[in-house]
Amino acid sequence: VHNGIEYGLMQLIAETYDLLHRGAGLSNAAIADIFHEWSYGPFGGFLTQITSDVLRVKDAETGQDLVDLVQDKAKQKGTGKWTSQDAMDLGIPIPTIDAAVSARQMSSLKEERIRAQQSIGRDVRGTEQSQEWLDHVRSALHLAFLISYAQGFSLLDAASTEHGMEIDLEGSAKVWRAGCIIRSKLLEPIREAYLHEKVVDNLLVAPAFQQIVFDGDGPLANLVIFAANVGIPTPCLSASLAYLDGYRSARLPANLIQAQRDFFGAHTYERTDQEGSFHTDWGIH
Amino acid sequence: VHNGIEYGLMQLIAETYDLLHRGAGLSNAAIADIFHEWSYGPFGGFLTQITSDVLRVKDAETGQDLVDLVQDKAKQKGTGKWTSQDAMDLGIPIPTIDAAVSARQMSSLKEERIRAQQSIGRDVRGTEQSQEWLDHVRSALHLAFLISYAQGFSLLDAASTEHGMEIDLEGSAKVWRAGCIIRSKLLEPIREAYLHEKVVDNLLVAPAFQQIVFDGDGPLANLVIFAANVGIPTPCLSASLAYLDGYRSARLPANLIQAQRDFFGAHTYERTDQEGSFHTDWGIH
Repeated sequence: VHNGIEYGLMQLIAETYDLLHRGAGLSNAAIADIFHEWSYGPFGGFLTQITSDVLRVKDAETGQDLVDLVQDKAKQKGTGKWTSQDAMDLGIPIPTIDAAVSARQMSSLKEERIRAQQSIGRDVRGTEQSQEWLDHVRSALHLAFLISYAQGFSLLDAASTEHGMEIDLEGSAKVWRAGCIIRSKLLEPIREAYLHEKVVDNLLVAPAFQQIVFDGDGPLANLVIFAANVGIPTPCLSASLAYLDGYRSARLPANLIQAQRDFFGAHTYERTDQEGSFHTDWGIH
Repeated sequence: VHNGIEYGLMQLIAETYDLLHRGAGLSNAAIADIFHEWSYGPFGGFLTQITSDVLRVKDAETGQDLVDLVQDKAKQKGTGKWTSQDAMDLGIPIPTIDAAVSARQMSSLKEERIRAQQSIGRDVRGTEQSQEWLDHVRSALHLAFLISYAQGFSLLDAASTEHGMEIDLEGSAKVWRAGCIIRSKLLEPIREAYLHEKVVDNLLVAPAFQQIVFDGDGPLANLVIFAANVGIPTPCLSASLAYLDGYRSARLPANLIQAQRDFFGAHTYERTDQEGSFHTDWGIH
């Protein structure tokens, strides 16, 4: 689960880098400065700091930014995949992590992507953005990081219950604060939430994090909108927004799905106004 | 894989229904008319038709639209999950289907969602939309349907190669044209593409489908933008857009991920300008 969260955070950073680079026309050096600054902020940590470091390294041979010469095929050892597969078995939605797994797989289809760009590609036209826009990107990434952690912890919680493992969630946050890849300043308030607040549902609704949601939801939506407008793929930012907006929707359109399932498979449905299981002949009357 | 595609199509329809209903303020009867019309169009089929039928059924007891009384918890028997898990093992991205699986899981968290709406919920403010907007929604859904099929067929293709199954993709499209849940008019051109065009990559780049991409990519992006603006979750529409924009991007930001992996795990990286595997000390210099 640590590695699943790691996949999520890394892909969120990669998408943000893409938006800053291709979307806003910033240089690697400028983006390194931004991530360096963010690494001292409330979601800063190992991955934000090494992003800054990586973007500054020059290739010894050519003098170019080395990151530009790195092939855009992300490999994986399977731990993110394993997290997603387990979450599906446990019935716990972790779509940000799922999207990070499939984004790595998409990256590996390099030859196909080159051919697809030639036949159905779209020009990405980036334009310079304001400091205010950058502040919004920071708030969006802050929230998206929280969403990745929230998905991971909700999975740990469910696995603990399902398998009778009695996982110490506060202890998990505590050990993850140091010495591991997903360490960041967000893990201390997560630890405190599990210690003091008796988190029963999701971290997103814990009082300590509601302000991050309120500060970040508009910026996250706006970043997804920005990406859709310029044509930059943001699978994990989009999945994070959909997770948030789904989780805080008391009513989702799954009633239609359940009615369809009852239509074609007599799978029955529940009603909002009565207890029990129901079946209807939904054919044209 | 049939059922995985089915999960994708059903969730795409559910999101579209939500956008038309809560986003554009249309009644169930009006949405039934729209899906009825679409069911005669180029992506029409069983699921679009039964959507129309379901939306017209009245509850015998209360006289209300029955769909409004159906609980918004979508159950699953596990075949969509199985498709996603297998695709992850084969390294094939099928994010629309993954998102449909996790959307059903999200729907089942009904009690948590009710509590979350109370603490961090957001009002969805729908507004009346034009006929032109509806035409764009149709083009977006047409393309999103194609993307679901394309992901399913790419998985079949990879599984066939990996397991030496010699799956007849044209034959698969042929049998799916009739008597199954995902039958739609799109399957005939898919069959023809496999028969005549020697599809080597993805259906999205087959000549027969490029016009659907060009007609639908703007509308699909605009629908994701609309949803983000009003706060309606669209996990599958968003995942479909990200899949399209990722697949047709010759360059993705996975270079940053691979550089980070080399930074913290010495996993090595490939270069764009030289053959071989490389490792760099990425720490601050």
